[in-house]
Amino acid sequence: RSGEMAKLTQLIDNEVFRVYATYATIVLLKMMLMSLITAYFRITRKAFVNPEDTASFGKGESAKKFLRTDPDVERVRRGHLNDLENIVPFLGIGLLYALSGPDLYTALLHFRIFAGARIAHTFAYLIPLPQPSRGLSWVVGYAVTISMAYKVLKTGLYL
Amino acid sequence: RSGEMAKLTQLIDNEVFRVYATYATIVLLKMMLMSLITAYFRITRKAFVNPEDTASFGKGESAKKFLRTDPDVERVRRGHLNDLENIVPFLGIGLLYALSGPDLYTALLHFRIFAGARIAHTFAYLIPLPQPSRGLSWVVGYAVTISMAYKVLKTGLYL
Amino acid sequence: RSGEMAKLTQLIDNEVFRVYATYATIVLLKMMLMSLITAYFRITRKAFVNPEDTASFGKGESAKKFLRTDPDVERVRRGHLNDLENIVPFLGIGLLYALSGPDLYTALLHFRIFAGARIAHTFAYLIPLPQPSRGLSWVVGYAVTISMAYKVLKTGLYL
Repeated sequence: RSGEMAKLTQLIDNEVFRVYATYATIVLLKMMLMSLITAYFRITRKAFVNPEDTASFGKGESAKKFLRTDPDVERVRRGHLNDLENIVPFLGIGLLYALSGPDLYTALLHFRIFAGARIAHTFAYLIPLPQPSRGLSWVVGYAVTISMAYKVLKTGLYL
Repeated sequence: RSGEMAKLTQLIDNEVFRVYATYATIVLLKMMLMSLITAYFRITRKAFVNPEDTASFGKGESAKKFLRTDPDVERVRRGHLNDLENIVPFLGIGLLYALSGPDLYTALLHFRIFAGARIAHTFAYLIPLPQPSRGLSWVVGYAVTISMAYKVLKTGLYL
Repeated sequence: RSGEMAKLTQLIDNEVFRVYATYATIVLLKMMLMSLITAYFRITRKAFVNPEDTASFGKGESAKKFLRTDPDVERVRRGHLNDLENIVPFLGIGLLYALSGPDLYTALLHFRIFAGARIAHTFAYLIPLPQPSRGLSWVVGYAVTISMAYKVLKTGLYL
């Protein structure tokens, strides 16, 4: 089966596909970081949601007071959900875009701007920066995804 | 590298893959629309969640009263999360299904029904239509995904 | 177009890709199961969120009392969201990893451990098991995804 494996490896050897692989991995790792930041704030703010998570603080009322929401935890969680809502379309549409034969420079431009916009969005959300920082970074990532979707549908529309 | 690019382009030239690319893009664009609808209701209902989003309404108590939940906003957000829960499995399983060599007509049937069901689900959720409209449209999309998963596992199971 | 179809079919014939297809489908089916468990608890606990869902219980106050949150429902929903947050990165990074030419044994190891960890995470969350059961199963799935991301970036990094 080394022949088939060679063909598969050609996919990751293709430059546009490698660009997609790189930026898709980067934005997914960035999204995964949100889990760690949530855990960090839950532990330092002592704000948990599951009773079994507060068992180490003792029993009964002494542990129960840590079952609460915290503004910082909730802020990170909103940023995480916003990532899911925007990175899932990027993953799907970006893959199809990378397979639709864009030229390398245009593809690099799309992927770099999207990744930059989502990283900026995270900083704008977590610091937080005054609006319209977060709004603008969100719009830029959204527009890049729409632009890629347009290319996919123009290249391969089949209803 | 033009030889490799040619091979990649063959992927988007394949008819079943083009059908997948088309419908995956359509349902992702539909899901992205939920963000705009949420923003529309947040602005028209003046119901925000981040203090920095209400800064333009003034300072202190006058802005604070816009940090509230609104039933219409929450409804759109639930529809958006339901999209994520159902479109993510469709994206992954649908891609594998498209690569498992289904015949074109069967693939078209699956993808068209899924997209139609999710669009119907959105209308049923946002209008809202009386039950079981929303429930039925959800079940149809779910069943299509299960049917594709069955084909994938039957074709390529490797534990 | 049978030549192109043959090439596509080769993708699902490739052993590593078949392993990915199998485990991606399994974890997505597991995630989809969370919807059914949520529905089960909503119905048995009579805890709904949309007014149109309680219409069959009568009108006015008699139906309104079923618009409430229930700890069991909320627990399943948290497990579902945790799945989304962790299975989305696995789907994207796992696909790129499968295309980056890992050897079959290493790929099997990654995919089996991830699937096992996520199934364990679901049991730990829903029973619930005392900590650190849920925490550990989460960390294992997270670490497997990071390991695959490292391989993808090492093989195909293109910034």
